[in-house]
Amino acid sequence: MPKFHENARLILNELDAALAAVNESEVEALVDAILTAEKVFVTGLGRVLLSLQAFVKRLNHLGVPAWYVGEMNEPALTPRDLFIVGSGSGETAVPVTITKIARKLGARIAHIGSNPKCSLSPLTDVFVRIPVRTKLELADEIPSRQIMSSLFEQCLLILGDAVALRIAEKKSITDMKALWALHANLE
Amino acid sequence: MPKFHENARLILNELDAALAAVNESEVEALVDAILTAEKVFVTGLGRVLLSLQAFVKRLNHLGVPAWYVGEMNEPALTPRDLFIVGSGSGETAVPVTITKIARKLGARIAHIGSNPKCSLSPLTDVFVRIPVRTKLELADEIPSRQIMSSLFEQCLLILGDAVALRIAEKKSITDMKALWALHANLE
Amino acid sequence: MPKFHENARLILNELDAALAAVNESEVEALVDAILTAEKVFVTGLGRVLLSLQAFVKRLNHLGVPAWYVGEMNEPALTPRDLFIVGSGSGETAVPVTITKIARKLGARIAHIGSNPKCSLSPLTDVFVRIPVRTKLELADEIPSRQIMSSLFEQCLLILGDAVALRIAEKKSITDMKALWALHANLE
Amino acid sequence: MPKFHENARLILNELDAALAAVNESEVEALVDAILTAEKVFVTGLGRVLLSLQAFVKRLNHLGVPAWYVGEMNEPALTPRDLFIVGSGSGETAVPVTITKIARKLGARIAHIGSNPKCSLSPLTDVFVRIPVRTKLELADEIPSRQIMSSLFEQCLLILGDAVALRIAEKKSITDMKALWALHANLE
Repeated sequence: MPKFHENARLILNELDAALAAVNESEVEALVDAILTAEKVFVTGLGRVLLSLQAFVKRLNHLGVPAWYVGEMNEPALTPRDLFIVGSGSGETAVPVTITKIARKLGARIAHIGSNPKCSLSPLTDVFVRIPVRTKLELADEIPSRQIMSSLFEQCLLILGDAVALRIAEKKSITDMKALWALHANLE
Repeated sequence: MPKFHENARLILNELDAALAAVNESEVEALVDAILTAEKVFVTGLGRVLLSLQAFVKRLNHLGVPAWYVGEMNEPALTPRDLFIVGSGSGETAVPVTITKIARKLGARIAHIGSNPKCSLSPLTDVFVRIPVRTKLELADEIPSRQIMSSLFEQCLLILGDAVALRIAEKKSITDMKALWALHANLE
Repeated sequence: MPKFHENARLILNELDAALAAVNESEVEALVDAILTAEKVFVTGLGRVLLSLQAFVKRLNHLGVPAWYVGEMNEPALTPRDLFIVGSGSGETAVPVTITKIARKLGARIAHIGSNPKCSLSPLTDVFVRIPVRTKLELADEIPSRQIMSSLFEQCLLILGDAVALRIAEKKSITDMKALWALHANLE
Repeated sequence: MPKFHENARLILNELDAALAAVNESEVEALVDAILTAEKVFVTGLGRVLLSLQAFVKRLNHLGVPAWYVGEMNEPALTPRDLFIVGSGSGETAVPVTITKIARKLGARIAHIGSNPKCSLSPLTDVFVRIPVRTKLELADEIPSRQIMSSLFEQCLLILGDAVALRIAEKKSITDMKALWALHANLE
């Protein structure tokens, strides 16, 4: 089998194993937290942030007002909002610092990560575990032969898009083409 | 006189001359266009975009919903919106392309630039001229000894902040401290 | 089977079908173009850009100097560089405008998209087809039940990461942990 | 005198007073730190970050490799690098957190701010004071009638551009037009 398809197969197999290991009820709790929040904020670093920004964009298409921390038109966070932090290890200094502020401001906190016992744990209302390699190497992690934390970042994008499908269903949005009406049109 | 203060003086003198040459009624037309729009979109390139993003951030603090083109939560542009393009020459391909789309979508178009006769002119409802050096070198331009288009970019930031003060006045916002309530608080 | 896993399964099945339909030799041509270029530039819109930015980040980790168009420290493009545009339809105005400029500047052009006959075709040296739904609906496309162009954006991320694995192999980078040394460490 | 020019005058007068109060030798120390560093990194929040990003862009034009923290191609920080943090109060949690990491990694630290005694002070090698209003209201501050911290953000842009002129001088760059060769050309 040629090279690209081998690598793509490796990635898809890892994605398959990792997403299968995600707990259904944890994701459902995240969906509920999103649908009951007034506004949604996300934070994360590097490629994790990119996956979360893709999620923010889709949430807005679905009529859920969402921002990433640092966006130009970011409003003030209130206790009626949901704050989602993506961090594999749950120990990275900047996301932990921002999450502490979000907690202090009274928002609900959701953490999507790999490490169930981390600095973010005491701050978290909803935890969604993607049990894949971070810098830590926990015993029950899905192993990965990819570069750095690629698997976590890929899982995060797919998980976000699966959650988006669930939200569309819960909001009874069936006409997917109608969603383009909320989409940026200056292209 | 020492070096930093010489350079700062050079910049402030150029800013002074350039902003003095801006036409009051053109700025007032821009203010009116902003206040009668449902939403405001801005576009530009490089440091011009940075000055416009600073303006977008302040507009949101003043209760004017504003986005830059490409922002994660950018909504669809409609005929009730104002589209502001910053471009000294008014000839740069990407901003011209986006402005044509905005025009086609029926939005009002404001152009802040240096060149009064340019590709953007036939598309423009409101033109605010900052008569400073771009790549063109028109006869009546304020000369600049700064690097590249620095003077235009600086003027754009100050003009945006002067417009923000005018909007605050027109909206009878006198308690400047109250504006922090709309400000991002995840810092 | 519960809801999240159903949606994740739907996405993974679509990804599987779409990536299997990608032509191996087209991807290999892209890899070669990247490895023979002096610098790599990418452009795209919305979530497509996010997937390409994830690719840019990884290329830099692998020692391939890469930028997205609009990045603060973006250098000048030269004829020794590769310009990669991501666009499903290959018809979107802004990417087409930028690609024309890149072509004029003499860079090699790679297009990753769905539509093999489009405005980008005459400008393109390397075309990688991901035959999935865009706004067009071509006869041989892999169908998708996802929201808007999600499948294309997901494929783009995975394809980029598969290409990154191939580049690591071709550059004989075997110590994946050593790559962290090139990674941003201000986290 | 009409409204726009009144507001522009108010801003320019404040800028004049604030920049005149900046200490020449502090700026010269910053210039030296930039010119002796291998790489330059900047961080800040909101409109402060925008002013610093404008500075990063100009530094690259002048041949000084510079990044903002979070940029896609951000490399690892080393002890040979300069880290510049912009923060009026010097107390904001996220910049302080990142600066602590930069310090630990051994970089030289420059702080541009208003508050001379702050959480950043013990971490700082070079301090440039712009004595204007932040949230603090220190006794010797230049008063401002502008919205929120506008004056600090404006000063930061102008100071950066004055520093850029000084660097051009120190590097004997006299042909300003030649700088366009290093400028992004995909416009």
